[in-house]
Amino acid sequence: MAKEKKFVEEIISMETDFGQWYTDVVKKAELVDYSSVKGLVVLRPYAYAIWENIQSKLDSMFKETGHENVYMPLLIPESLLQKEKDHIEGFAPEVAWVTHGGSEKLQERLCIRPTSEVLFCEHYANIIHSYRDLPKLYNQWCSVLRWEKSTRPFLRHREFLWQEGHTLHETSEEALEETMRMLNIYAELCEDFLAMPVIKGVKTEKEKFAGAESTYTIECMMHDARALQAGTSHYFGNGFAEAFGIQFTGRDNTLQVPYQTSWGVSTRIIGGIIMTHGDDSGLMLPPKVAPVQVVVIPIAAHKPGVVEKATELLKTLESAGIRAKADFSDQSPGWKFSEYEMKGIPLRIEIGPRDIENGQCVAVRRDNRSKEQVPFENLVSRVNEILRETQQGMFDRAKENLINNTYTAHTLEEAAEIVSDKIGFVKMMWCGDEACEDRVKEVASMTSRCIPFEQEHIDDNCAICGKPAECMVYWGFAY
Amino acid sequence: MAKEKKFVEEIISMETDFGQWYTDVVKKAELVDYSSVKGLVVLRPYAYAIWENIQSKLDSMFKETGHENVYMPLLIPESLLQKEKDHIEGFAPEVAWVTHGGSEKLQERLCIRPTSEVLFCEHYANIIHSYRDLPKLYNQWCSVLRWEKSTRPFLRHREFLWQEGHTLHETSEEALEETMRMLNIYAELCEDFLAMPVIKGVKTEKEKFAGAESTYTIECMMHDARALQAGTSHYFGNGFAEAFGIQFTGRDNTLQVPYQTSWGVSTRIIGGIIMTHGDDSGLMLPPKVAPVQVVVIPIAAHKPGVVEKATELLKTLESAGIRAKADFSDQSPGWKFSEYEMKGIPLRIEIGPRDIENGQCVAVRRDNRSKEQVPFENLVSRVNEILRETQQGMFDRAKENLINNTYTAHTLEEAAEIVSDKIGFVKMMWCGDEACEDRVKEVASMTSRCIPFEQEHIDDNCAICGKPAECMVYWGFAY
Repeated sequence: MAKEKKFVEEIISMETDFGQWYTDVVKKAELVDYSSVKGLVVLRPYAYAIWENIQSKLDSMFKETGHENVYMPLLIPESLLQKEKDHIEGFAPEVAWVTHGGSEKLQERLCIRPTSEVLFCEHYANIIHSYRDLPKLYNQWCSVLRWEKSTRPFLRHREFLWQEGHTLHETSEEALEETMRMLNIYAELCEDFLAMPVIKGVKTEKEKFAGAESTYTIECMMHDARALQAGTSHYFGNGFAEAFGIQFTGRDNTLQVPYQTSWGVSTRIIGGIIMTHGDDSGLMLPPKVAPVQVVVIPIAAHKPGVVEKATELLKTLESAGIRAKADFSDQSPGWKFSEYEMKGIPLRIEIGPRDIENGQCVAVRRDNRSKEQVPFENLVSRVNEILRETQQGMFDRAKENLINNTYTAHTLEEAAEIVSDKIGFVKMMWCGDEACEDRVKEVASMTSRCIPFEQEHIDDNCAICGKPAECMVYWGFAY
Repeated sequence: MAKEKKFVEEIISMETDFGQWYTDVVKKAELVDYSSVKGLVVLRPYAYAIWENIQSKLDSMFKETGHENVYMPLLIPESLLQKEKDHIEGFAPEVAWVTHGGSEKLQERLCIRPTSEVLFCEHYANIIHSYRDLPKLYNQWCSVLRWEKSTRPFLRHREFLWQEGHTLHETSEEALEETMRMLNIYAELCEDFLAMPVIKGVKTEKEKFAGAESTYTIECMMHDARALQAGTSHYFGNGFAEAFGIQFTGRDNTLQVPYQTSWGVSTRIIGGIIMTHGDDSGLMLPPKVAPVQVVVIPIAAHKPGVVEKATELLKTLESAGIRAKADFSDQSPGWKFSEYEMKGIPLRIEIGPRDIENGQCVAVRRDNRSKEQVPFENLVSRVNEILRETQQGMFDRAKENLINNTYTAHTLEEAAEIVSDKIGFVKMMWCGDEACEDRVKEVASMTSRCIPFEQEHIDDNCAICGKPAECMVYWGFAY
């Protein structure tokens, strides 16, 4: 039996089963294929093109702020990983071990990098001598591996692509400033480029990165009101630098220990795009990150002049720097509409014989399905406007979802009541005590997302224990 | 004791010890740092920036010819690697094995990809159904790992960065055409972008890639007259596709097996740049690939107006799209001259008080040290010209080296005589018999580099056995 090209298949509704909807979209939009190793996936061309756009945006922001790219080894000797004790405790349970090279057993096990702090430190110890060598602002694009038990496309792969920045500074002030600079770059990526509103803040002690003094985060809310940590920026103080013997001659001619940061964003953020913007027709991509921003679809393509006009429109769009494609395949227009809705292409241009007569085409927005006639002479300017409106519209919709699903609670009981039949973020005052944080998990199943920079004074006292409050915390259910 | 910033140190002369010279340059030009795992290195910012330029050039050539990027898993199950028997025989001795994930022993060993044919095949088997799905023109940028015994920066790392293209086609003609298209893209990269002349040809059976039907290659000659294989493009026929059960419904509605290619270029090519162009002052980078094309050095920077003018020149160059930097550090001009010669920056602009008075600066080419006055008003146009002249001059010099060190031999004895006191390429006729190929290795220590596309008829008979010759072969000493 001959196998035939797939037709666009139905996906389950988001409201029925958000998890299954997500899996359906990842598959039907041709983002990922599974490999024969659990948790390691193939990023198909469409997913990789999204990642390339994110990379290119982030990389230019890194370079504008003086960062340089490097490439560190894939493998870490066990003894090197063990040099910083909090770090090894955090990562040892989830690394993969190489024990043989060819047919020979290795004298020391090597782990595949789960993150590269120790490799950067080893290198920095070799190359940092004087305050003149600082700051060192390095970043690398690579894949890392963490042997997680449960896995999910984009959200939790055993192997994932990311960038990891690792910087060294003369003073703690400079390092803290860098930590915040990179957090702000991540926030800009999310809000301006990916149309994902963020809450910026600092993680509690319990939730911070293994080995860091403090971890800053941007937290996004998905369509189902769960939280996704979209990027983190860590301040290390000089703990790692001390453990690795990194020293430099300071301006006063004494030997000093530098201060360190690290920060990362991964392909996980693609999961965030899917879950922030998608709907029951599939993926929905913000125009700025979409590999294809406009798809041109000929209607009654067999009629004279249609293919020619569609080609002309395509070329006009392309020469204006708009990422466009046309589909001249023999599938029906209806099939094509749903195919490109599934792929989340922000704008569809339909062009048929009657449109040509009227000197216009039809433009249909993916996000709100609004439809309008666009005269040929206005094509580029109107398409650019619609793309801007779409970008903004998607941000506004996501922001509304965040606002609508954020609650305020004055007591833990109230919080538990709120989340007894719904998901969302809950704002509560906190005394800073880890016991209270554990209590929220026990009673309301929520973890602390962050202590936001934008604080509100809800009450004087901790919502959990009643002691004086230190700050307001966002609590939620995380991916 | 305070550590102090390094001064530019001497490197050994190329003629004294080419191997040591190479190691010195790699270190002094700050290209590589060693890690604690043998054969795994740190690519420092300068080396990585060179790689980024190569990547960006190649990637745009790939995309112009319709290729798409994907990302495949890092790990390959042992059983998957074994599916194609020639392939596993070629790679099994040099793969690294992961045996544990966290604290748990894996049921099946996983190797770190030494190359990804089997992963692409596994994926293609999932997604190829009809002739409409073909061709599939995929490429990936990643790192691979081969557990080599002896290692050397860039030339032979255990881990290296590369791109690997893997394509599937309806017919063998199309696949062969693709194999050749990619070889030509590699040749263009080498000759036009890296100023490295190439010999294009096909590998003998003995030297071809494990599992390929034929391997096409570009061979470059290094300054010491040894050969470097700078890129390869393989035609697989449909052997892998059969082993992996990849089938599609053809135009005639029958099930068919597609034809396959793969092709790759790695960071090894950076070793090629170093050894093709370098000299006793260090690295020499062709302008097209140089991360910094022009360095502006103020002379008597404390004198009024010098720093301002140097800054102005820098900005003028930068706004013309020339990759430029200025060094305002407190090192002496002499120190800076040798530092940027070591780094191989193609052009140096010196600007001092007298130059300012005369309304000009001094331009010094890295490749031939030629020095000229450039009036400020001609700066951009003259610098662009000099960079073009440098690019061409470097190509010509390398071409001359290739010509001067290529010999013709009519017998194996003559070949052995030629290479008894020098290194080079030797052209000889060959009958096509592997025994004769082995004999050349035994008697003259040379391996076949390739059967060049540009054939010459030297003799009628094989230079080794005297039987009728099939073709002319380049023989040489390879890195």
